[in-house]
Amino acid sequence: MKENEPPPQSENITWHRGSVDRASRAALYGHRGATIWLTGLSGSGKSTVSVALEAALLERGAHTAILDGDNIRHGLNRDLGFSPEDRAENIRRIGEVARLFCDAGVIALTAFISPARAERDRVRALHAEGDFIEVFVDCPLEVCEARDPKGLYKKARAGLIPEFTGISAPYEAPESPELVVNTHTQSLDEIVDLLLDGLKARGVLGAPSEG
Amino acid sequence: MKENEPPPQSENITWHRGSVDRASRAALYGHRGATIWLTGLSGSGKSTVSVALEAALLERGAHTAILDGDNIRHGLNRDLGFSPEDRAENIRRIGEVARLFCDAGVIALTAFISPARAERDRVRALHAEGDFIEVFVDCPLEVCEARDPKGLYKKARAGLIPEFTGISAPYEAPESPELVVNTHTQSLDEIVDLLLDGLKARGVLGAPSEG
Repeated sequence: MKENEPPPQSENITWHRGSVDRASRAALYGHRGATIWLTGLSGSGKSTVSVALEAALLERGAHTAILDGDNIRHGLNRDLGFSPEDRAENIRRIGEVARLFCDAGVIALTAFISPARAERDRVRALHAEGDFIEVFVDCPLEVCEARDPKGLYKKARAGLIPEFTGISAPYEAPESPELVVNTHTQSLDEIVDLLLDGLKARGVLGAPSEG
Repeated sequence: MKENEPPPQSENITWHRGSVDRASRAALYGHRGATIWLTGLSGSGKSTVSVALEAALLERGAHTAILDGDNIRHGLNRDLGFSPEDRAENIRRIGEVARLFCDAGVIALTAFISPARAERDRVRALHAEGDFIEVFVDCPLEVCEARDPKGLYKKARAGLIPEFTGISAPYEAPESPELVVNTHTQSLDEIVDLLLDGLKARGVLGAPSEG
């Protein structure tokens, strides 16, 4: 069986979604959809940055959604473990969901270590040109390890967590991310401003006067 | 390995999302998030209704997303086939994604046959009370078969599609859906008005004066 589902009927063709609809949606919302893909080591501050950026975007009336371990690993991807295949599938699905948000005109913020360059590039390839904004949340490993907000580095050093990114598994830093922030040398306010400016420069948000 | 991902750091606790955030998001958007789950036979008009309802909602400034075969089966669920297990997993994932949209304050419209009552009820259970609005898109089988927009009934009658809902596999109509529309006896305009009224009555959309 192919697709057990009809498309909108031909007499209703004026309702079909397409680029016009996307443009009018962007006009209505005052911004276009985008996927802000935060990548970085455990403890680098991805979740913190995503939450602060979302708050700033909401203040500006933008429509946002955060995808993170809390709402993905316990929901959509609850069937996945931590084998290499499952980790890849985890990132693939997150990428697909981010794209759905993006297509709906929402600014999706994702906060996952996503250590593999090839997997991030596959997510990028799902998106239309310009819709995928890779943000490298940079922070020295030793600083992340000192923060160790969940005690994961301690466990990894004790050999209790196999293949822990940065300790016993590689983190492949982005080669040409759209944006880079550094949570060790920059304040959270500086980072949020930098990201907002980056979104304006890329036409995701309206003109600077809006901000 | 458990969760290779820290939560927002404790010093940033004021940024945590929660019910307040959800309420303020609803205030900002002028409506709350919800999942409008359309269920019905192939050819009953789910996609047509979803697209017309979305247009009406967008006109009212609402934030919407349609999940349908086009953007799910070729994206997020491209790894799934049509075995009973895969069909169930298909619906499960759609339900999880709809909930993510709903949690982000978006009105998610889903258009899938979703013939199994138990599977729809599992999706309902993922949602907070009142967030899941099941809409039975009713239409007599013979009318759906006469429409046959994709020629699927013809193929099913010829034995070319195994387990086709309504022909060789059961459709379990909702027992107590939030809303029922009938695409055989009602016009699309009537249906859209009925659904908008239903969303207002349930507090998803603002007061009737808004509409």
